[in-house]
Amino acid sequence: MSTADLRGLDERAARAAWSRLAEPGDRAAVRLVRRVGAVDALALVAGDRPVPPDLVADDGDDAARATTRAQRAAVRWQVRRPDCVPRRDLAVVTRLGGGFVVPGDDAWPGCLADLDDAEPFGLWVRGEQPLAPVTTGCLALVGARASTGYGERVAADLAAGVAGRGTTVLSGGAYGIDAAAHRGALSAGGVTVAVLACGVDRFYPRGNESLLRRVAEEGLVVTELPPGSAPGRSRFLHRNRLIAALGAATVVVEAAWRSGALSTAAHAAGLGRPLGAVPGPVTSSSSAGCHRALRDLQATCVTDAVEASELVEPVGAVPPSAREVPVRDHDGLGEHDLRVLDAVPVATARDVFALSRAAGLPVASVQAALGRLQLLDLVHRSATPAGSGWRRARRSSGPDRLTARPT
Amino acid sequence: MSTADLRGLDERAARAAWSRLAEPGDRAAVRLVRRVGAVDALALVAGDRPVPPDLVADDGDDAARATTRAQRAAVRWQVRRPDCVPRRDLAVVTRLGGGFVVPGDDAWPGCLADLDDAEPFGLWVRGEQPLAPVTTGCLALVGARASTGYGERVAADLAAGVAGRGTTVLSGGAYGIDAAAHRGALSAGGVTVAVLACGVDRFYPRGNESLLRRVAEEGLVVTELPPGSAPGRSRFLHRNRLIAALGAATVVVEAAWRSGALSTAAHAAGLGRPLGAVPGPVTSSSSAGCHRALRDLQATCVTDAVEASELVEPVGAVPPSAREVPVRDHDGLGEHDLRVLDAVPVATARDVFALSRAAGLPVASVQAALGRLQLLDLVHRSATPAGSGWRRARRSSGPDRLTARPT
Repeated sequence: MSTADLRGLDERAARAAWSRLAEPGDRAAVRLVRRVGAVDALALVAGDRPVPPDLVADDGDDAARATTRAQRAAVRWQVRRPDCVPRRDLAVVTRLGGGFVVPGDDAWPGCLADLDDAEPFGLWVRGEQPLAPVTTGCLALVGARASTGYGERVAADLAAGVAGRGTTVLSGGAYGIDAAAHRGALSAGGVTVAVLACGVDRFYPRGNESLLRRVAEEGLVVTELPPGSAPGRSRFLHRNRLIAALGAATVVVEAAWRSGALSTAAHAAGLGRPLGAVPGPVTSSSSAGCHRALRDLQATCVTDAVEASELVEPVGAVPPSAREVPVRDHDGLGEHDLRVLDAVPVATARDVFALSRAAGLPVASVQAALGRLQLLDLVHRSATPAGSGWRRARRSSGPDRLTARPT
Repeated sequence: MSTADLRGLDERAARAAWSRLAEPGDRAAVRLVRRVGAVDALALVAGDRPVPPDLVADDGDDAARATTRAQRAAVRWQVRRPDCVPRRDLAVVTRLGGGFVVPGDDAWPGCLADLDDAEPFGLWVRGEQPLAPVTTGCLALVGARASTGYGERVAADLAAGVAGRGTTVLSGGAYGIDAAAHRGALSAGGVTVAVLACGVDRFYPRGNESLLRRVAEEGLVVTELPPGSAPGRSRFLHRNRLIAALGAATVVVEAAWRSGALSTAAHAAGLGRPLGAVPGPVTSSSSAGCHRALRDLQATCVTDAVEASELVEPVGAVPPSAREVPVRDHDGLGEHDLRVLDAVPVATARDVFALSRAAGLPVASVQAALGRLQLLDLVHRSATPAGSGWRRARRSSGPDRLTARPT
């Protein structure tokens, strides 16, 4: 409550104070802290001194606008002063087995600098692992709370697949796709990180409490909000931006046409991060947001963990996926061989002259093709009333089976 | 049988003869006909004269290779001479109520020139409509024979949607997606065109005979192969190229990882035609080819008829689709209003000073936001033990409902 609480703080504690005074996305606060440091910036607030307009000015501000911005900011920050007790907050997170990581720390993820004036003052972390390098090169898997069984299954499969390859999974803490992603990563013995829109001392939503507790034990729970903070819509939107920036790439697993997951996707694309989207049935409104990302955000179509991994790893680092491709008898045959094979009947034998006319190829070419086809066991020589001819071998598909095959 | 059959023909009949002598994709034949005309080219074959190598040479050929090419071509074409009776073929297609359309005709689709040395000599057509302009600006819907109910439903819906807008649908004549596309177009009273890999006198496969008969009656059945020709794998591949070139755009509706529909898609992309692909569940191998087209061929994700139409119509010509977007209470609210709304409790009332601290905003800003939220019927004033406060209106969603919403 007392002003004394905001004096004599070191940079870390001063940044903890700022994470309480200023709501996520308060660009004036970030600019002020960037320009004079968290300690001096806090001294302004603590001393009730006016905020110099040039310290909070945005690039496009004229003098009048900068002055208004500074005045408004000062009033805004004063409002939270009574609740600002950074030493208590730091003690709370320490008791929870975590800490407050700030820029300059070894564990600070350098990629967050891409957020510019929206970079957090610091991140409240719950868990034992170092925020960096654990989140370095991680894959954000995002999606809707209102998920389907399909979306949850795919989220869990993708998470298990990439986590099994040693890639950290990143998501929110919500029901649906977020929870499925964490469960998938944990099931593969991998590391997963949950970014919350509330304090790390509360596991929200309640139904995910035991899951988030496991995430904190085997991975990390992270937020830019100080302990005790409640979730809110505005905070979810800023949290989405944080997920986009922490992820080396983001994949939207399942999302409706309008969805917070799409805001994360748009942020990721805006930050120049690779963006993927998992398609689904066009008849499912739960996949409409993914299809929108494919169309409007030029997301890459992601159908399995290998394709997801390719978004965060150098091209070629991921072994080509073993596609289940049925091998057909005629795979790899050249144009002439195909034409001759098409001309060879199943039921009766046909001589090379008739085959030549049917295939539109000289007799010599037909004979050469027949030799190759015979080696492949696709045709065999057979007696005809007029002499010798050729017919299909039993394992080769006849024209009648052609109708059952895709063209 | 007699040489006389190949003499004294006009350009159309000579091209009909070439469609018999040379298999689709015989580039040497196309080059020869392009350079000296179909009549003179035929005179070479009919007179058993050697083919001048420079007339069939490909760009990269040296003299020796061109000579070999010319010799091989001559032998190849001689093989089919006994079966080449163009006047009979023309009579057959006339009797079927069709014709043989050649370059230079008003009805010749100019877009086929994009095929260069693979442009057909002419097209055998069954049906009463003029090939151009009926196919001008048409949309090719392609996919696998081995389709699912999902794929067939989407194919029929897309076809009905675009055909209902006056766009001609183009497809093959196979079971599965092809048949579903034709049925969808016909159901909407639209025009549909089937491109076959056999003669137009045979409706292949047999099970589609009545469907293809309807297509010929209300649209067109088209092929580059003369009457009596049987289908074959090589012919299907060249037919795919023809579909890609005739379509102003191509959409792959459902296809496995390896599928003829993907060869059509690759041709369309290679010709610079817009390419679309309909996504499906990643767990369905029947959609793997569509996802491959999205990834490897940079196909546009297509989820409905409006998006399909956009591929063949100028941007803006298609009215925006009426998305079924649920409107939420807080849609359109600004950042400050959202923060204040989040701070207003559901169960009890809270005064403006408490709201100011919770939202991290000055009292004046909170009061302004409350005014807007009250106008929207999202909050209302309520008595508190200490005086007057604010709580959520019943229609506004409370924090407890937040968990059921996508973030």
